[in-house]
Amino acid sequence: MNNIKVIAFDADDTLWVNEPYFREAEDKFCALLEDYLPMHSVAAELFKIEIRNLPLYGYGIKGFMLSMIETILEVTEGTASLTMIAKAIEFGKEQLNKPIELLDGVETVLSALKEDYRLVVATKGDLLDQERKLQKSGLENYFHHIEIMSEKHEKDYLKLLKHLDCKPENFLMIGNSLKSDVLPVLAIGAHAIHVPFHTTWAHEVVEHNVEHDNFKSAETITEILTFLK
Amino acid sequence: MNNIKVIAFDADDTLWVNEPYFREAEDKFCALLEDYLPMHSVAAELFKIEIRNLPLYGYGIKGFMLSMIETILEVTEGTASLTMIAKAIEFGKEQLNKPIELLDGVETVLSALKEDYRLVVATKGDLLDQERKLQKSGLENYFHHIEIMSEKHEKDYLKLLKHLDCKPENFLMIGNSLKSDVLPVLAIGAHAIHVPFHTTWAHEVVEHNVEHDNFKSAETITEILTFLK
Repeated sequence: MNNIKVIAFDADDTLWVNEPYFREAEDKFCALLEDYLPMHSVAAELFKIEIRNLPLYGYGIKGFMLSMIETILEVTEGTASLTMIAKAIEFGKEQLNKPIELLDGVETVLSALKEDYRLVVATKGDLLDQERKLQKSGLENYFHHIEIMSEKHEKDYLKLLKHLDCKPENFLMIGNSLKSDVLPVLAIGAHAIHVPFHTTWAHEVVEHNVEHDNFKSAETITEILTFLK
Repeated sequence: MNNIKVIAFDADDTLWVNEPYFREAEDKFCALLEDYLPMHSVAAELFKIEIRNLPLYGYGIKGFMLSMIETILEVTEGTASLTMIAKAIEFGKEQLNKPIELLDGVETVLSALKEDYRLVVATKGDLLDQERKLQKSGLENYFHHIEIMSEKHEKDYLKLLKHLDCKPENFLMIGNSLKSDVLPVLAIGAHAIHVPFHTTWAHEVVEHNVEHDNFKSAETITEILTFLK
């Protein structure tokens, strides 16, 4: 991994804990509708509605809240009381106010790399929410800026590189999602390191064995330093 | 206005029509609750809830939808039927699917400036929604990229300039909001041109008479060309 100039870090479940908070909110939400459907069926219904709304809403908690509300409408066939809607809004707001729990080693890695590379955050999600999380994380000063991406497909990374005035061979992406942080990055000729997290949203899961000259897999984020020295 | 290198355009109500669509959705929404409160009181309640939620949700249609839903909960004191919630979601989705109506002269202006300046879009709102509007507008190729800003205060413009690697004296902002597109931009030593639009959201209104060396006011967007020749 020579010639790297810009390193982009995914945020959720790469720098800090995120997916477990979504799972927690989802569990509470499914319990709320238990009188209508078994919890796993509510979860399946919610997932279906989230995916249906994704092209319209994009990623992030506000879209998740709107999808929970729509799930209530569908699962209860319009018979629920408004208390349930209030609950869904409450779950979403709680999630927006969660504290930030940094993953082990993140700060060590960022301070080791800060001098030699331009570091950016490249993440999906709601703009304000991600900015707030970055601020709460105390990591803001390590990064040149934060890029919120509406998707992480090849064309979105090409747009990002144009925006950064950076060539693919000088770009390294680090993240926990093979689907979003690795495969499209390798496809455009850039570099990627996968740092898995224990929980992955179903929408981000791919079964894939990656072998590529520009690819490394790390057990923990600290391990990426060994590839960059 | 010499030495300008980067020109940033606000999007909503500067490049294309937006506020009237919000007013239209709001009117339909207030009519929905007319049995509970006079329309102007519903509008006042909605505005109060939108402003209360702004620090948490930020700008954009998804936050507007969530605030409409909360307004239903409050105005009907939890007694409404879920049909009303479904209606609010429908109004929001309709708005997300609105066609783009370019304002007069926009394309002429952009083609006249494209060769000599780096043009960017700098706008508040939901990321995916703004990207989609830019794409629908057919204007994408005029712009180096789109910057979605969670706020347009001085510190946000400073962040933007750092991100663009641009000095304040080389930066010009063009937009319809004195509060968001002009005052903070002048305050950091950059240039601004105000192009008013006939409808302005109450939250964006300021009573202000601007006199400043770096400031111009234009009646229409085409007029900005006379300041840049």
